[in-house]
Amino acid sequence: MRTVTYGGACSLDGFLAGADGSIDWLRFSPEVGEIMATYWKDVDTILMGRKTWDFAQAQGGGGGADTSGMQSFVFSRTLSRIDHAGVQLVNEDAGAFVGALKRKKGKGICVLGGGDFARSLFEADVIDEVGLNVHPILLGTGVPAFLDAKHRVKLELRECRQLRSGCVYVKYRVKHARGAAKHARPASRAP
Amino acid sequence: MRTVTYGGACSLDGFLAGADGSIDWLRFSPEVGEIMATYWKDVDTILMGRKTWDFAQAQGGGGGADTSGMQSFVFSRTLSRIDHAGVQLVNEDAGAFVGALKRKKGKGICVLGGGDFARSLFEADVIDEVGLNVHPILLGTGVPAFLDAKHRVKLELRECRQLRSGCVYVKYRVKHARGAAKHARPASRAP
Repeated sequence: MRTVTYGGACSLDGFLAGADGSIDWLRFSPEVGEIMATYWKDVDTILMGRKTWDFAQAQGGGGGADTSGMQSFVFSRTLSRIDHAGVQLVNEDAGAFVGALKRKKGKGICVLGGGDFARSLFEADVIDEVGLNVHPILLGTGVPAFLDAKHRVKLELRECRQLRSGCVYVKYRVKHARGAAKHARPASRAP
Repeated sequence: MRTVTYGGACSLDGFLAGADGSIDWLRFSPEVGEIMATYWKDVDTILMGRKTWDFAQAQGGGGGADTSGMQSFVFSRTLSRIDHAGVQLVNEDAGAFVGALKRKKGKGICVLGGGDFARSLFEADVIDEVGLNVHPILLGTGVPAFLDAKHRVKLELRECRQLRSGCVYVKYRVKHARGAAKHARPASRAP
């Protein structure tokens, strides 16, 4: 099975971008460059929602990634066609499509934010890894990395690095839900 | 000036408690016990909003902390009195009150969650430190640790520890805003 990874740079309060999509708070560093270069070596497929595609187009790139030689899939129920080499439009259910894609031969699969598209994949429990470069800032508002996937997603910490930039890089493995247990939400009041 | 610290245990998606206030996902460990014991030594004052007070009362304690010998302040615009030794009701503006409290003699001041009360203190820029014990789970919904403080809160990473429990402990210093600059939110579209 291929590994599906979701993540990106985010604020401590969990935003991938601030108000109006601002990313001026991002800290680039050689350390992160190395982490990403290593990661991209094992990836040959990129998944994104329509909003991220629009942004990537506006920026003239693939959302910050070097997408040359990669297969990209853009998920949208409103777009009717995309004329771009290496990019395929997917109108069908994202969870089912990605579930099938994982069973095909290939390298890792990268999910580009935002959280709205990622939520549909968490709901379908097809995401295997979460990687975040947590920045030392509270944005207060913006594009959330995580939205309610309707069930708890249990994780296992695989890596935690304090970066010289003042950011914290964390990587988690998703502990996949098994049947009905994934919907359990035991209750007890707390602050 | 006394140091005002806000934080607690939270999920990776930033909730202090899950749906219906659930905290069954919390991981207790000797390591966290030591961190907290060291922290409490330098604290003599606890601040909380009305909702956290209600919870602490229901639990018969001070929100998980050993509050013996501490001065507690409960902030509420609806409560008219609190009959509890060492606990004072505050009806006035939280930001102004805490700003004045910081200038009085004393040890550290601890803000107990949730995010709604903390937001009012972030808005007034009176919080100096943020400490989180980030748990490896996405809850999806619940009591958020952070709400929009109407301005960006810049932080400086002071400590980052990968705990044996699979949690990540992070501690930040708040870089206090100076005048109008704190309201700046430069724009540029992003995913």
